[in-house]
Amino acid sequence: MGMIGLGKMGGNMVRRLLAGGHRIAGLDRDAGVMADLTAQGMVGAHNTADLLGKLGQPGERAVWMMVPAGPITQSVLEDLAAHMAPGDIIIDGGNSNFKDTMRRAEELRAQGIHYVDVGTSGGVWGLSEGYAMMVGGDEAAVERLRPLLETLAPAPDRGWGRMGPSGSGHYVKMVHNGIEYGMMQAYAEGFELMKAKTEFDLDMAQIAELWRHGSVIRSWLLDLTAEALQQDTGLDGVSDYVADSGEGRWTIIDSVEQGVPTPVITLATQMRFRSQQELSYAGQMLSVMRRAFGGHAIKTVEAHREEGLVPDLNPANTSAAEQLGETGQQRVKDPE
Amino acid sequence: MGMIGLGKMGGNMVRRLLAGGHRIAGLDRDAGVMADLTAQGMVGAHNTADLLGKLGQPGERAVWMMVPAGPITQSVLEDLAAHMAPGDIIIDGGNSNFKDTMRRAEELRAQGIHYVDVGTSGGVWGLSEGYAMMVGGDEAAVERLRPLLETLAPAPDRGWGRMGPSGSGHYVKMVHNGIEYGMMQAYAEGFELMKAKTEFDLDMAQIAELWRHGSVIRSWLLDLTAEALQQDTGLDGVSDYVADSGEGRWTIIDSVEQGVPTPVITLATQMRFRSQQELSYAGQMLSVMRRAFGGHAIKTVEAHREEGLVPDLNPANTSAAEQLGETGQQRVKDPE
Amino acid sequence: MGMIGLGKMGGNMVRRLLAGGHRIAGLDRDAGVMADLTAQGMVGAHNTADLLGKLGQPGERAVWMMVPAGPITQSVLEDLAAHMAPGDIIIDGGNSNFKDTMRRAEELRAQGIHYVDVGTSGGVWGLSEGYAMMVGGDEAAVERLRPLLETLAPAPDRGWGRMGPSGSGHYVKMVHNGIEYGMMQAYAEGFELMKAKTEFDLDMAQIAELWRHGSVIRSWLLDLTAEALQQDTGLDGVSDYVADSGEGRWTIIDSVEQGVPTPVITLATQMRFRSQQELSYAGQMLSVMRRAFGGHAIKTVEAHREEGLVPDLNPANTSAAEQLGETGQQRVKDPE
Amino acid sequence: MGMIGLGKMGGNMVRRLLAGGHRIAGLDRDAGVMADLTAQGMVGAHNTADLLGKLGQPGERAVWMMVPAGPITQSVLEDLAAHMAPGDIIIDGGNSNFKDTMRRAEELRAQGIHYVDVGTSGGVWGLSEGYAMMVGGDEAAVERLRPLLETLAPAPDRGWGRMGPSGSGHYVKMVHNGIEYGMMQAYAEGFELMKAKTEFDLDMAQIAELWRHGSVIRSWLLDLTAEALQQDTGLDGVSDYVADSGEGRWTIIDSVEQGVPTPVITLATQMRFRSQQELSYAGQMLSVMRRAFGGHAIKTVEAHREEGLVPDLNPANTSAAEQLGETGQQRVKDPE
Repeated sequence: MGMIGLGKMGGNMVRRLLAGGHRIAGLDRDAGVMADLTAQGMVGAHNTADLLGKLGQPGERAVWMMVPAGPITQSVLEDLAAHMAPGDIIIDGGNSNFKDTMRRAEELRAQGIHYVDVGTSGGVWGLSEGYAMMVGGDEAAVERLRPLLETLAPAPDRGWGRMGPSGSGHYVKMVHNGIEYGMMQAYAEGFELMKAKTEFDLDMAQIAELWRHGSVIRSWLLDLTAEALQQDTGLDGVSDYVADSGEGRWTIIDSVEQGVPTPVITLATQMRFRSQQELSYAGQMLSVMRRAFGGHAIKTVEAHREEGLVPDLNPANTSAAEQLGETGQQRVKDPE
Repeated sequence: MGMIGLGKMGGNMVRRLLAGGHRIAGLDRDAGVMADLTAQGMVGAHNTADLLGKLGQPGERAVWMMVPAGPITQSVLEDLAAHMAPGDIIIDGGNSNFKDTMRRAEELRAQGIHYVDVGTSGGVWGLSEGYAMMVGGDEAAVERLRPLLETLAPAPDRGWGRMGPSGSGHYVKMVHNGIEYGMMQAYAEGFELMKAKTEFDLDMAQIAELWRHGSVIRSWLLDLTAEALQQDTGLDGVSDYVADSGEGRWTIIDSVEQGVPTPVITLATQMRFRSQQELSYAGQMLSVMRRAFGGHAIKTVEAHREEGLVPDLNPANTSAAEQLGETGQQRVKDPE
Repeated sequence: MGMIGLGKMGGNMVRRLLAGGHRIAGLDRDAGVMADLTAQGMVGAHNTADLLGKLGQPGERAVWMMVPAGPITQSVLEDLAAHMAPGDIIIDGGNSNFKDTMRRAEELRAQGIHYVDVGTSGGVWGLSEGYAMMVGGDEAAVERLRPLLETLAPAPDRGWGRMGPSGSGHYVKMVHNGIEYGMMQAYAEGFELMKAKTEFDLDMAQIAELWRHGSVIRSWLLDLTAEALQQDTGLDGVSDYVADSGEGRWTIIDSVEQGVPTPVITLATQMRFRSQQELSYAGQMLSVMRRAFGGHAIKTVEAHREEGLVPDLNPANTSAAEQLGETGQQRVKDPE
Repeated sequence: MGMIGLGKMGGNMVRRLLAGGHRIAGLDRDAGVMADLTAQGMVGAHNTADLLGKLGQPGERAVWMMVPAGPITQSVLEDLAAHMAPGDIIIDGGNSNFKDTMRRAEELRAQGIHYVDVGTSGGVWGLSEGYAMMVGGDEAAVERLRPLLETLAPAPDRGWGRMGPSGSGHYVKMVHNGIEYGMMQAYAEGFELMKAKTEFDLDMAQIAELWRHGSVIRSWLLDLTAEALQQDTGLDGVSDYVADSGEGRWTIIDSVEQGVPTPVITLATQMRFRSQQELSYAGQMLSVMRRAFGGHAIKTVEAHREEGLVPDLNPANTSAAEQLGETGQQRVKDPE
């Protein structure tokens, strides 16, 4: 098989496949990455035509794309399709939108090329623990990929499966990520609540570690969280800006298009949006409204900073708990 | 009637009552306020005993408390009760918790004193437009207050009413404030969305004014918002910190105790909590988790500031829309 | 001007225009509607060509479409465009998605036809009170429509305005509807909470009427609610199924695409989705999970009905409050 | 040690302690349970005095209460305290509110009795896998319980710990349950979304099983869910009524009292409230409002049933997906 895109995900997948005894040809623009992997046994390719030339007979070849969703996936795909023959397989292992995948599969079908989508989960841990893979596409094409999937998975018979037709793999992966957002936010809220409960002086690292064993909420995310908190107890200097990927957004859009209520997944994503704002126009509007009907003094940003309500963003000086205490007092001073 | 507490609300209520031809005795610690209102015809009192002495026969007197909820209400109440006779009426026009009101009414009942709660809405506009008043208490006691309530209300037959027994007035006012939070948040979200839609370059002040006339969402809050936006189009320098009062919180607690879902009222209040945080521990936890499973680079607050993602909180330099644009790019750079 | 689509909205707009002295030609498939409006002075047309023939010189004509968004709008539009000349104006007064509007305006621009979008609010009350109209399109085209818009609006100088280029009118109307959802949900939650508070035996109709006068949350929606509750106090037999329109959904999608948090508007829409479900698969999943880890007895639908927890949907027999009481007991019997 | 309350939790804990070589005296009103456990080696007691008599010297005894939170805990506690001596320990292993625990600890402290709260997680699986235990109380008292806690835990050095002073154990357990609600709701939403995606005909049991291996969202809850779905793929006849315990509600109340935003935990709990309603008054209000401003036909419950929109609650006949399809059509017929 060929692999295009040998970054954090693609490179590790090649390593796992090589370790499993597969012969893999790879292609990436980064010469350092290419050198590293060829030293480990990968067959290096110079370009798409070269890659395909090293993969056996036309109609029996398979190339796995592990590149960013969007324009890059589209251009790599077009380049591949231009060089391929009927019967060949293209795999999209990235985080493409399932609607794009459905369209692309339809277009390639006219050319006789199989298009298989593999929603891939496991992050940086996949190399050692294996990847969870949600596969969409023709049954026959998926069957041809079975040896590779069995090696990439945590075990040959688990952690991967054909979900349904083209697009279904990316769809299930998309929902997976939506759930992940909800779970992460649930944990984060719980820890924030406990952190704020200063009268108990709770130890977040201890609690995360305790919950890993025997509790109802034990999980792999909690395992990682507990380990991270062991190393960095105070979170000093860590930003509260939380990036979000396209998949969380697509999950919301799908839920809206289907008319299915997904309040928790949606809120988890929206709280990330909120974290990405430094000055909320909605908040400013609310301040203006409160002044208008209640005569509530409107604070400028400067005034808040002077009162200590807009701290200097140096978390070494002001803990979240102290800020909460101050806002509590503020509430008493400025009732609605 | 007597009035204790002549601040923004109490003072204006005395003015409206005096204008309506009522004889009012008032008490406040602030000499300036006392001088101002006695000049307008109010009878000044030096202390509780003096106030009660100026109100007619024991058993026929009524005193309206317009003081902050909590300890102050409790101490004024106890002082009043110690000087009063069976048949007298104490009115709590503040924002007390309805549970406190129910307890106080029960305690005063043993003494033969009527306790009437008046949830009062109208803000600084009540003086000219009248106050909406939600009244709880014995029917006979409320009936004795009718002439006063008819003057304070927007019109004798509208804008006030007896809701039910003691506590019900404060309860309905509490829910009123919960609804208010939800409505305000709905407007604020809509305006934020439109403000971010830079390709249309929409004029917030124009839209708010337009919607006041003929639209489904016209309201008094919108009237005030439109006027405020006429004066302060850009909201430059306005803080996005949004204080919240106890009543929003109590509404959530009541909904939880009743098992009634109130997602919108609750979220509106929680977004205020979020606005009061400058560094979210939940957000920091999420950053740590993302790094742990995805190898996502974790940003320090410093790094975000350098990238412009943590602006210098000077809204003259960075608009919300520009920040959103930058976070959009960030998302592409750091997929999950 | 010509009007295509003389239903509840279009017909009333023609009536308001005729009353304002305008000459209007109209077209609708419904002969009864046509007869009714021609009797009131409208010029009837048999088809698109006929309609255009009655509207003056090519290049100076304007036709207002008041038809359902989607395929019908598209086909009426194409039919009109096929008969029109450069300089003519097509107005879309319906609830089209702003992205469709932007695309259509672009396509018609190539033909020299102006495309103006008018987001229209006011419901069945627009005939008497005037319509709020958010207009998008070329300045010159909008200016040519000014006399019509001034008549349709509540007053010549208020309740309408040009928002920006094509699509912006429909966009602002979309956000308007999103805000409307949030406001409605806020009121509905508040009333539900008060209805459940059986110890106070509150009168919903009285409260709605009271709040109309002097309260901070007075609004046109509250006016209508109060009137409706006067007529139908108990809501007996009224379904709790709440339909939703495309505009609420589009608002959420736009917020997600922009990365702007709109939790309240979103939740309000999702609660409508929830109301449209009679059997929630998510709820079933949660029951199964609770059994799995807690040994909690799982209820079949039958068992719930026997316990009175699935009432027979005859609201005359079981009030929401009684159900809540029963679920409260259930909670005690089956702790988690 | 003595154990009072030998139900699902208490009985299994005695079994685990006996298996660990501890000598346990137990008390329960249920003779069958008593017979069963004494046959396994437990020392049976007839009443509180008898139980304490079998536990060694006054001042060195410890009794673990595993009874329902609320009045039963309070009365068992008072009975115990009346028979105990300074230095004895009472343990509350149930789900008491941490505020009650703090108060009780304070009261018992005056008597010289130690009060230790142990928030216990693990459900029916604790017997074999061990219990996660979050412990609050005096350090010395907790230290005396160490041998018991080490046996009950999954391993001597993990799954249990002293969180802080009295109340902190129950507090951390409360937050644990709040997080659990959020996680469960996230999964449930994801599965509902995928179930509704009928074009992919996804297999829920297969997906749950796949995600257990290598995915980011693997967890113990998912393990149990996957097993449950293997046995009951269709969920036919399973009610969507989801009970909730006091702990979820208390988490919300604590978050409100602290002013910490917990939108996901809160929403998860509120969706349970919603599932407990069969007729939503809020939904009825929304229907009435929509009719009032839009002339939208208001549906009676009867009309919805006739249209198939209120199915007969027999899930064998109508799948959630079919219902969604129907409501989708409804939406088109009745735009807003």
